[in-house]
Amino acid sequence: MKSVDSTFEERVRASFAQQALMKTIGASMTKVSPGEVVIELAFREDLTQQHGFVHAGVITAIVDSACGYAALSLMPPDSGVLTVEYKANFVSPAKGERFIATGRVVKPGRTLTVCSGDVLAVDEGKEKIVATMLATMMRLSV
Amino acid sequence: MKSVDSTFEERVRASFAQQALMKTIGASMTKVSPGEVVIELAFREDLTQQHGFVHAGVITAIVDSACGYAALSLMPPDSGVLTVEYKANFVSPAKGERFIATGRVVKPGRTLTVCSGDVLAVDEGKEKIVATMLATMMRLSV
Amino acid sequence: MKSVDSTFEERVRASFAQQALMKTIGASMTKVSPGEVVIELAFREDLTQQHGFVHAGVITAIVDSACGYAALSLMPPDSGVLTVEYKANFVSPAKGERFIATGRVVKPGRTLTVCSGDVLAVDEGKEKIVATMLATMMRLSV
Amino acid sequence: MKSVDSTFEERVRASFAQQALMKTIGASMTKVSPGEVVIELAFREDLTQQHGFVHAGVITAIVDSACGYAALSLMPPDSGVLTVEYKANFVSPAKGERFIATGRVVKPGRTLTVCSGDVLAVDEGKEKIVATMLATMMRLSV
Repeated sequence: MKSVDSTFEERVRASFAQQALMKTIGASMTKVSPGEVVIELAFREDLTQQHGFVHAGVITAIVDSACGYAALSLMPPDSGVLTVEYKANFVSPAKGERFIATGRVVKPGRTLTVCSGDVLAVDEGKEKIVATMLATMMRLSV
Repeated sequence: MKSVDSTFEERVRASFAQQALMKTIGASMTKVSPGEVVIELAFREDLTQQHGFVHAGVITAIVDSACGYAALSLMPPDSGVLTVEYKANFVSPAKGERFIATGRVVKPGRTLTVCSGDVLAVDEGKEKIVATMLATMMRLSV
Repeated sequence: MKSVDSTFEERVRASFAQQALMKTIGASMTKVSPGEVVIELAFREDLTQQHGFVHAGVITAIVDSACGYAALSLMPPDSGVLTVEYKANFVSPAKGERFIATGRVVKPGRTLTVCSGDVLAVDEGKEKIVATMLATMMRLSV
Repeated sequence: MKSVDSTFEERVRASFAQQALMKTIGASMTKVSPGEVVIELAFREDLTQQHGFVHAGVITAIVDSACGYAALSLMPPDSGVLTVEYKANFVSPAKGERFIATGRVVKPGRTLTVCSGDVLAVDEGKEKIVATMLATMMRLSV
């Protein structure tokens, strides 16, 4: 896919830096390309649910941000992005040392952009899919 | 709705107490009845997204837990609960002093339970819906 | 909820009359109020899936139309409506003589309206929920 | 992906042949491989919504069946399949001569299988995505 200008990475990273939650949970943005963004998270005990796996809400938070910024990367410079809605399936327990969330634009649009995302767990060096998302993002004029 | 025995509240609260994420974000369980659970969260700057509202992932986390425990409240004593999938719509910015997530069982089942949930923001004393969820929960034998 | 003018029912019924699929499957609109629409369908063998129940796609079609028209009923006269996305859970087999789909507006908006819907089966005189939907509808200027 | 035995195509096609709705709308199954199934539909006026495009419910029906049979193709011989839930985004109007729905298994499971699907429209020889789905299917012992 093609971004509208060369500032897309800078704009995406600046906005991500303002997501206080991402700092709180220790997530970092490891890749920004037009229409695709990767966010990674290390396992932490204080992010778990009752079985010791990372809570679905945290897994959702990183793939939601990855999808939102994938959408933003294709929007014009004066844009903000908002999550309209998403659906996620949790296909394996979120168990591992590290989690890699990738968001991709399926269909860009003037107002609404549809994205898909997934989260892989890296557990003892092996990758395994833990969640998959389908999301609708909205452009805001800022 | 009717729980199978009188231990449902104790079982739900014991499991919730083990969700480390809920402590990390400062969420508390304020109501447990058969088929309905309420979880509340105070606004905190370190849970926000780029516009200063609470991140969709955090809103999702509390209503996911509320839905999961609403499902668990109707299950037999030897049960655990797992989120199969959910879909959430974000209908207003998560702006306010406090957020009230309610999860309700729509259809209990032996293996799968369908729940709906919503999150209200309390902003200067007024309540406003910020999100609505439809979720599928799965019973585990433990 | 409140419609913007008194023509809402006429506008909704006129648009429904143009949905050729609804005629094809034999669905009829039985109630139109501001923010809530009911569509009913009689069981027909030619609408079934492999187990003899009504196909999920047909159940989805009637509750999608009910949700879309619930949204349209609150929009100004020069509006059309389009389904952005939906999610549906199928909680019991679609077995019965008749199916009643109700769509309700959860949150109206200038561009996007969020609706919820459900489908009841009437089987030997008893009502049973077969599906529940959460949907996003979009206003078009026409 | 790998099917458990060589009868998967026969089993999938036999079950599809019993979906009366697919005959009613004129859909045909054009490809069955392990974990992936394609269903095609020709445009027909009697399947449209109010703007003359194919109704979202019909688009959903073909991609739901494609996803369900993709799941069934990986299940043991004594299995039936049921749709637990799905979410679909409609990214362009369903306009064209022909529609191609592909269902793919994302994660097979003993009880639950997660699938994704999409529908392409063929319009004057060009393909365009009209819908994308994320679905949960359940195995039944038959």
